[in-house]
Amino acid sequence: MAISIQTSFAFELERPTDVLLQFEAADIPEQRILSAETCMTEAEHCAHVPAQDDIGERIWLRAEGHFEVDYNALVEPQRLLPDIETLRMLDPHDMPGEAVEYLFDSRYCPADKFQPFVEAEFGKTQGGARIAAIREWIERNFSYQPGTSDARTGALDSFVERRGICRDYAHVMVTMARASTIPARYVACYAPGVDPPDFHAVAEVFLDDPTTDGGGAWHLVDATGMANPAETAKIGIGRDAADVSFLTSFGPNNFLRSSVKVSIDNT
Amino acid sequence: MAISIQTSFAFELERPTDVLLQFEAADIPEQRILSAETCMTEAEHCAHVPAQDDIGERIWLRAEGHFEVDYNALVEPQRLLPDIETLRMLDPHDMPGEAVEYLFDSRYCPADKFQPFVEAEFGKTQGGARIAAIREWIERNFSYQPGTSDARTGALDSFVERRGICRDYAHVMVTMARASTIPARYVACYAPGVDPPDFHAVAEVFLDDPTTDGGGAWHLVDATGMANPAETAKIGIGRDAADVSFLTSFGPNNFLRSSVKVSIDNT
Amino acid sequence: MAISIQTSFAFELERPTDVLLQFEAADIPEQRILSAETCMTEAEHCAHVPAQDDIGERIWLRAEGHFEVDYNALVEPQRLLPDIETLRMLDPHDMPGEAVEYLFDSRYCPADKFQPFVEAEFGKTQGGARIAAIREWIERNFSYQPGTSDARTGALDSFVERRGICRDYAHVMVTMARASTIPARYVACYAPGVDPPDFHAVAEVFLDDPTTDGGGAWHLVDATGMANPAETAKIGIGRDAADVSFLTSFGPNNFLRSSVKVSIDNT
Amino acid sequence: MAISIQTSFAFELERPTDVLLQFEAADIPEQRILSAETCMTEAEHCAHVPAQDDIGERIWLRAEGHFEVDYNALVEPQRLLPDIETLRMLDPHDMPGEAVEYLFDSRYCPADKFQPFVEAEFGKTQGGARIAAIREWIERNFSYQPGTSDARTGALDSFVERRGICRDYAHVMVTMARASTIPARYVACYAPGVDPPDFHAVAEVFLDDPTTDGGGAWHLVDATGMANPAETAKIGIGRDAADVSFLTSFGPNNFLRSSVKVSIDNT
Repeated sequence: MAISIQTSFAFELERPTDVLLQFEAADIPEQRILSAETCMTEAEHCAHVPAQDDIGERIWLRAEGHFEVDYNALVEPQRLLPDIETLRMLDPHDMPGEAVEYLFDSRYCPADKFQPFVEAEFGKTQGGARIAAIREWIERNFSYQPGTSDARTGALDSFVERRGICRDYAHVMVTMARASTIPARYVACYAPGVDPPDFHAVAEVFLDDPTTDGGGAWHLVDATGMANPAETAKIGIGRDAADVSFLTSFGPNNFLRSSVKVSIDNT
Repeated sequence: MAISIQTSFAFELERPTDVLLQFEAADIPEQRILSAETCMTEAEHCAHVPAQDDIGERIWLRAEGHFEVDYNALVEPQRLLPDIETLRMLDPHDMPGEAVEYLFDSRYCPADKFQPFVEAEFGKTQGGARIAAIREWIERNFSYQPGTSDARTGALDSFVERRGICRDYAHVMVTMARASTIPARYVACYAPGVDPPDFHAVAEVFLDDPTTDGGGAWHLVDATGMANPAETAKIGIGRDAADVSFLTSFGPNNFLRSSVKVSIDNT
Repeated sequence: MAISIQTSFAFELERPTDVLLQFEAADIPEQRILSAETCMTEAEHCAHVPAQDDIGERIWLRAEGHFEVDYNALVEPQRLLPDIETLRMLDPHDMPGEAVEYLFDSRYCPADKFQPFVEAEFGKTQGGARIAAIREWIERNFSYQPGTSDARTGALDSFVERRGICRDYAHVMVTMARASTIPARYVACYAPGVDPPDFHAVAEVFLDDPTTDGGGAWHLVDATGMANPAETAKIGIGRDAADVSFLTSFGPNNFLRSSVKVSIDNT
Repeated sequence: MAISIQTSFAFELERPTDVLLQFEAADIPEQRILSAETCMTEAEHCAHVPAQDDIGERIWLRAEGHFEVDYNALVEPQRLLPDIETLRMLDPHDMPGEAVEYLFDSRYCPADKFQPFVEAEFGKTQGGARIAAIREWIERNFSYQPGTSDARTGALDSFVERRGICRDYAHVMVTMARASTIPARYVACYAPGVDPPDFHAVAEVFLDDPTTDGGGAWHLVDATGMANPAETAKIGIGRDAADVSFLTSFGPNNFLRSSVKVSIDNT
């Protein structure tokens, strides 16, 4: 089974501007890139650099005027699909160094503030069962409403407003996981089933790896319930949305359009 | 020339609690650890893990009751000491992947908001000259006042309140550097000259490496003016203070005392 | 039945400074001031002005050096004590102009953000029953912990941290009432039963006045559960804590001590 | 000389909803309403109530479906027009009670945080000269950019972003005046010269009344520089924008259109 992705977007830069793009499915063990084709307007400079934690790539551009990106890919997910609810939490002193930084507060995820709430609401659960309980709580209490949040909205706002888009659901999920001493990060991805179709975002939590003895692994969790981990193609990861935007412009940018189509290809 | 460090702190944990410590000078090429001795109360579990970007180590503990830490070290800095003002900024498309994440907003450093101010105030300078101008602006406009800020204080608060401690100075420095498209990170360190003596924090910016052709390097900048890069011993780095605390407790913690003594050892 | 109040506090001003005090029980129809005595250090200037909505007085001082305040009073509450739960909400178009401003967001009470939560959690209740449900929800979910909040803490912080002092409980109560289209204000007061003894704060909501036909009245609600409206002596009111501090200093102020004793006098 | 005002707006309410409107020029001594005509869609309920500080009126509606408002008026300003720069500041102990609440922090105006900045930047000026200096500083350092701020933007954001619309300019002006111990409020108004034409907002500060001996008065100040106090028609006032919106909806509201035309009528 493969995921077919067709992405297209365009923007305009009044003067030569540095732009960072990250929209390609990452070439990592858990997903095979069967085919991929990227067409972009020619730029003055263009450089590919490894993205955070070596998951995927970022593209640096220096360009001016009208700029278009078209990306088509076929991606075959091959990730482990354990039942989250059964996964054990690693004791903190067993956590590897690279997971530790995902316990800390980030721009949109002030985990520290959420400890009393998480303890009061989910105190009887632990590890994967805690994550499943948090996920269900968010899905049950939030409503998916495009247009109600923006780039300033953090997990604290979303927690009280109880609505937002995938970005906001993922922020609250990440924040509550960290407040439970479970490392959590933000994942930009493609998934069929996202409605309205768009770039998607989910959380990833660091729990037990059922295939090893005592090791840990990252596991996808989508609080919106729209994306199935078996059918998700990762673009990149970060502390939160501040780290993995498909388009970051270091200067004024007139965004023109975007279109994302994701489907299951059973051929 | 070496830096002599004597650190001691103690805390009390009512019940078995996971604690993360980071207080030892990092064993990295830019500083030689001539000698180091750490004495800690025995813990139920204790594990050393590499800290962020492999700079220094974090110590995971699981402990209960009274806990004491004593650390004595002699560290010889050997870092490059270029004149910041003369350093060139790397073009974004020449920045390596590992520097890119230090351009983004973090918990205490909402760089995005500062772009108009930075452009208006420092628009005529670039690269190292920009960093020097920002550093001087902060030192001139801020007053060092212990007790006026706390763990909630971010760069936006400090910017308007114009006072704080090393942590706040470093946050504003990091934020304005990022708003200038210069990667910047937060450095926990020891330095003589810090008054009152305490754990210290400075910023580090990614600019030209004068010893290579076209490469970049991290350079220390202290907006408080108290720490000289030639006499600074790094403990660890992070996006901001959320990432590098000497003590992070995953449960209630009764902090009892701390003492930090740093001096130049010319023997 | 009367409330006996003994308040004493002291502070020090390095240079001539304007200070605003508000600590005396208000002389208003709902409470009779049986006796009151205020002793203050002599000041360069001293003026009494009516406080917000003409409830109580504020005292302007201009002073320097050591300053002491001693206040002793005997106050007999005579307010209506309806069962909040039975009170009707006024339709907005029946609300008098002076109540309307207590529907809006204030410094610590961003009511607008709380509408989805309030609708989801308390949507089946209305008017006084809604207020009673909110009050119980706060008392059940929050823990009273002096030292966990400070002057920066707003209702959004408290909502997620689920702890704080009377000020924080009152802010959350006020915020959720306003989010329910019920005007709500913040009341500084004295009450026996406050533990540890201190200046107290509660909320006041504008609902049906059971003694008139169609009119409205303000009713006290204490989310901490410590103060009984029948035994509460009001000092003053405001949008939130920003408006009614017992001491506001327009310049540096070294606060030395305060003591508040409140008891029931049955003589 | 008179100000001719033509305002028109429309919105749609899916179900019966309470709405608060405030768009009519206030009938107060400082401006004569020569003529005024308001046409509104019929509502289930409609009530006029005095607005804040008895300046103008608010209209409560309960309506459903399509709703239109048309307002035409001719207003003759008759206010005092002293040179702000020459006005004296009142000593705090001479300030009347009703001005005091405009010294405190409000939703969008955290004045407390701005004291160090205001002292550092404007410390050499006082009273009206301080206000003039702040006004010029804002006009010089900010750029008027519709679309860069929204309903969440407060004075702290605007201060660092250095851009926004009339609302944001007024918030920063109000905040810095309060941080200078000068009472300041937010004024919704109509003025020719506003570009693009729209509802306008300015600040009002409480300083010396040159026509009385020792009294104080409110004086208009527009940090955008677009509105001349001699040609401004006040709608209403408040602590900040949270208090004086032309349309506040207590339920979902689909805003359709608005048009504001203001001109000088010399007939």
